[in-house]
Amino acid sequence: MHKVVLIGAGRIGHIHARNAALHPRIELAGVVDAIDASAQALAREWNTTVTTLDAAMADPTVTGVIVASSTDTHLDYSLRAAAAGKAIFCEKPIDQDLGRARTAHAGLSGANMLLAFNRRFDPNFQALKARLDSGAVGAIETLQITSNDPAPPPPSYVAVSGGLFKDMAIHDFDMARWLLGEEPVLVYATGSCLVDPAIGELGDVDTARTVLRTGSGRLCVISNSRRSGFGYDQRVEAFASAGMVRADNVSESTVQLWSENGIATDRFQNFFLDRYAEAYRREMDHFAEMLDGAPAQVGYADGVAALALAEAADESMRTGAPVQL
Amino acid sequence: MHKVVLIGAGRIGHIHARNAALHPRIELAGVVDAIDASAQALAREWNTTVTTLDAAMADPTVTGVIVASSTDTHLDYSLRAAAAGKAIFCEKPIDQDLGRARTAHAGLSGANMLLAFNRRFDPNFQALKARLDSGAVGAIETLQITSNDPAPPPPSYVAVSGGLFKDMAIHDFDMARWLLGEEPVLVYATGSCLVDPAIGELGDVDTARTVLRTGSGRLCVISNSRRSGFGYDQRVEAFASAGMVRADNVSESTVQLWSENGIATDRFQNFFLDRYAEAYRREMDHFAEMLDGAPAQVGYADGVAALALAEAADESMRTGAPVQL
Amino acid sequence: MHKVVLIGAGRIGHIHARNAALHPRIELAGVVDAIDASAQALAREWNTTVTTLDAAMADPTVTGVIVASSTDTHLDYSLRAAAAGKAIFCEKPIDQDLGRARTAHAGLSGANMLLAFNRRFDPNFQALKARLDSGAVGAIETLQITSNDPAPPPPSYVAVSGGLFKDMAIHDFDMARWLLGEEPVLVYATGSCLVDPAIGELGDVDTARTVLRTGSGRLCVISNSRRSGFGYDQRVEAFASAGMVRADNVSESTVQLWSENGIATDRFQNFFLDRYAEAYRREMDHFAEMLDGAPAQVGYADGVAALALAEAADESMRTGAPVQL
Amino acid sequence: MHKVVLIGAGRIGHIHARNAALHPRIELAGVVDAIDASAQALAREWNTTVTTLDAAMADPTVTGVIVASSTDTHLDYSLRAAAAGKAIFCEKPIDQDLGRARTAHAGLSGANMLLAFNRRFDPNFQALKARLDSGAVGAIETLQITSNDPAPPPPSYVAVSGGLFKDMAIHDFDMARWLLGEEPVLVYATGSCLVDPAIGELGDVDTARTVLRTGSGRLCVISNSRRSGFGYDQRVEAFASAGMVRADNVSESTVQLWSENGIATDRFQNFFLDRYAEAYRREMDHFAEMLDGAPAQVGYADGVAALALAEAADESMRTGAPVQL
Repeated sequence: MHKVVLIGAGRIGHIHARNAALHPRIELAGVVDAIDASAQALAREWNTTVTTLDAAMADPTVTGVIVASSTDTHLDYSLRAAAAGKAIFCEKPIDQDLGRARTAHAGLSGANMLLAFNRRFDPNFQALKARLDSGAVGAIETLQITSNDPAPPPPSYVAVSGGLFKDMAIHDFDMARWLLGEEPVLVYATGSCLVDPAIGELGDVDTARTVLRTGSGRLCVISNSRRSGFGYDQRVEAFASAGMVRADNVSESTVQLWSENGIATDRFQNFFLDRYAEAYRREMDHFAEMLDGAPAQVGYADGVAALALAEAADESMRTGAPVQL
Repeated sequence: MHKVVLIGAGRIGHIHARNAALHPRIELAGVVDAIDASAQALAREWNTTVTTLDAAMADPTVTGVIVASSTDTHLDYSLRAAAAGKAIFCEKPIDQDLGRARTAHAGLSGANMLLAFNRRFDPNFQALKARLDSGAVGAIETLQITSNDPAPPPPSYVAVSGGLFKDMAIHDFDMARWLLGEEPVLVYATGSCLVDPAIGELGDVDTARTVLRTGSGRLCVISNSRRSGFGYDQRVEAFASAGMVRADNVSESTVQLWSENGIATDRFQNFFLDRYAEAYRREMDHFAEMLDGAPAQVGYADGVAALALAEAADESMRTGAPVQL
Repeated sequence: MHKVVLIGAGRIGHIHARNAALHPRIELAGVVDAIDASAQALAREWNTTVTTLDAAMADPTVTGVIVASSTDTHLDYSLRAAAAGKAIFCEKPIDQDLGRARTAHAGLSGANMLLAFNRRFDPNFQALKARLDSGAVGAIETLQITSNDPAPPPPSYVAVSGGLFKDMAIHDFDMARWLLGEEPVLVYATGSCLVDPAIGELGDVDTARTVLRTGSGRLCVISNSRRSGFGYDQRVEAFASAGMVRADNVSESTVQLWSENGIATDRFQNFFLDRYAEAYRREMDHFAEMLDGAPAQVGYADGVAALALAEAADESMRTGAPVQL
Repeated sequence: MHKVVLIGAGRIGHIHARNAALHPRIELAGVVDAIDASAQALAREWNTTVTTLDAAMADPTVTGVIVASSTDTHLDYSLRAAAAGKAIFCEKPIDQDLGRARTAHAGLSGANMLLAFNRRFDPNFQALKARLDSGAVGAIETLQITSNDPAPPPPSYVAVSGGLFKDMAIHDFDMARWLLGEEPVLVYATGSCLVDPAIGELGDVDTARTVLRTGSGRLCVISNSRRSGFGYDQRVEAFASAGMVRADNVSESTVQLWSENGIATDRFQNFFLDRYAEAYRREMDHFAEMLDGAPAQVGYADGVAALALAEAADESMRTGAPVQL
């Protein structure tokens, strides 16, 4: 059993605590949170103890750390864990600031660190990737990533989110890099405020389209909206030389209703914790593999690269010109 | 050009007139109808002339006859056309009475006669048959035929229809024979009046389930209702030793509406003249092949066999016991 | 926390042990199994102890018993648990013999007993039932239940299974009763051995069609095969006066591959423990509700009624005549 | 009956000849073509005569002209027909040169002229437009137009095509204007040669992504490839404030094959004359409405506007910068 300590007892911390505690090869050895009551409650739920960051780092039997605290602490806690020689499971994003993220290069680029972009672990997107990798449709040429949230977040969240590109499209930039098999060299983005004027008043957009171009001319479009109106809309179409592979949305059930109004199928899953429940389990399973000795599938460098694309998209939108990377 | 005369200027006669007139190898050489105004109007529409049955039979340049008159005349007109050595395109059913239909054996079993079961010519069901014949799914074992009309006919129609099995399920009995590749030897049927009490008062049912069993044990279920509530519901599932082939309903368009209520696709086609427009064209094309010398794909013997199954189903429903054939 | 003891540490016992242990209101207080090593291993996995039937029954703090042992023990263990005043979670079927099952009436008809027909707890079938109950499509008229296993079981299993109707279609008989909202009064069944000759040599069939008829004339067809060739094929179509509701199969992912060969979507789930994983969780959740005081949604009487239909179907198949209930 | 003369007896001329000849309110009164044999053959097929442009223009009983000749003659023949006071059915595009197209403004902007963008008449896209216009999903915000040909044209065609944007995406620019309900004010395009190097050698691209932005910030992405690898890929997704409407590809049949490899549905229609057969019929029906006195739904100004977008996209791709309109 690998002993692992969790830092952060918030919403996503609860998910990771459960998955760690139930994993057959992981022992949830402690919970750290600035709010003691939160740490206590979560520790009690999974029959473990409250601990501190210092104690966790100093305990040689703890071989892994899950960083699920607020975004501005991801780098610091990861650096401390790396320095202590522990495997790291760090929530996305690596940081909101590209410059800051890059300064951690010395400390993190060699670490055994999972940067937990959940979509890479979603069964549907993994199945899509497997089809592409199998060669069944030839070489990838273009990519269409659709990523719309069910409903916009409150303005208070938007204000500290880092903006649509760093907060929301960051997932899609990582997906693009993962699936295109080549680094983007050009970014063009444009955005509008069509959903909620309060978002526009904060200087952000709620609707955007981004075009990425790789060195060999592969093209990717990312479509984002803060509000779909019909559930969690997370789809990918990968066009290749001998066909297309796509992953569609996930429905709440397989039920259809046939009536004089037409054929109605069930709604799409609406909540990201439902939509990605299995992805979070697979993240933890991959962390167990890393604790067994396997290399991380996605790490510090990927977090930085996605953030660089987000900053470039933001710059492109603000200047109106494509940005070379 | 093959000169063909049409007998019957009613609704289905209009369909066949159009398809004959537009066929590149057929000339619509005349229209016959007991109601002169109907014959005149249809002849004018397709730039041909009104004629009589006697004249058509006596004209040696007329090599084909389309029998689209009322059901009780199908046998007589087909027998006359056969005696005159003409190719015959006869609407289904062959007759409402099995005994009568069998008396025509001497005259029709050797005729160049198409009994026009339209579903055999539907592109979807033909595609299904082609998949089965290709061997892609192995040998057929069971069959599920769903055949529901959008809405019940008026009681006046039901009264002279011959009952649900001879009027409606007759198509499905032909489909079963066509797809099972083996003759049914046992029929069990049960029915209810659930849709329109007026149908029950006429001694008929509007809802039925029929089970067919072939000599080698292949099983087929036919599901019929006079009212689907959602359009023309004509589906087939053919289960075979290495998979299943099915043909689904036809939608009015490919449009989908995604909203908070779920995913709504367009309605199914509702009217049989829309649903089977292409089937009627392919029937005429096959008739042209017959006029060129090809044998009919479905003829007198098939009409009699389907009628025998309909009578057996009717008997089974009335006695409550399976009927051996 | 409700203390619950599990009897039976086999494959399905492992499922229920996990779901009980992880349920927030249930404590898995012990495991009973005739094979001590099996009981020990399962108890260790969930941090509980091995106990005996007698000890469990005698312990007043144990308020619930899960009967997941072999079918021939279901009645005895349930009767003992009922006599001890405990809530019962009993695996299906109630028994293989209708006469025996009926003798337990005095002991079990008043018990707080869940007979765990898993499909009633499947999210898809529950969603279908909810649509029907909502009145959105009017009153139910007919039902089509398709229930095909991916591949046939070994002959050794078939030999002790009780036959296709009691072993496999028993689920579908329960579904029919649940969804039709009325008791069947007539059963007709026919079956064949088309999949595996070894099944026929054992006197059983591997392919069957059953027609049920209720008192008011509602009709239900159950289609069974021991081998679909394409995965777990569990579908329901419920036709009602204003439309149709159906529940379809569950795919392994949402991935599609579009190529010159057509559009390929992913396979259906193949293994019942995957297909019904959530159903088993919901069963346990319902058991927790029963322990809280709620009545069982499906119990002893339902187990007997489904078994009676299975025996009637078996009789109908063997005699060739419909059976009145 | 409206007498109409057809100019151009090539492939698309054959389609329009048939639809005109079969239309109940149109008489195909003559065929004009520079190649006499072509004109003769087509005239014979539809029982009409060969005529000349001059004779057609001079004949006061001819009230409509179909311009289906080569692109470089569209403007001249349309101007002559307009000057002669005839209704005009002109194939797309209006011309390959925006400057030239604009010089015809005086002659054509007031003409009774249909510029035949076939997709506006496709039943699926019309159904999508009707859903949007019904207000069922609120106000449109963004649009995704996917438009991929099955396979690339020969280089000889590409050489004279005017390039991907004017030849292929011109349809999509018209669709964008039709559906967005607002004029684009900004165009950004990027393209690659990924499919056929011969296309790149001609200075053209075979793969492109175009982003349009309207005055109020609505966004549209157009995805084009000269080769899908899986058939005619013509789809639209229109995202609006209360949901999304989309039109999907058209399959060759409704047949599915379920096997251990997954669920395979039939191929998409591959040939534009099949895919848009009904659209061409509806174009002719609309032309009959125009001859009856109705205004054209799409005319000269639309042809110029689409061409202006194509030129802007071409410029954006070549300069690498967005183009303001």
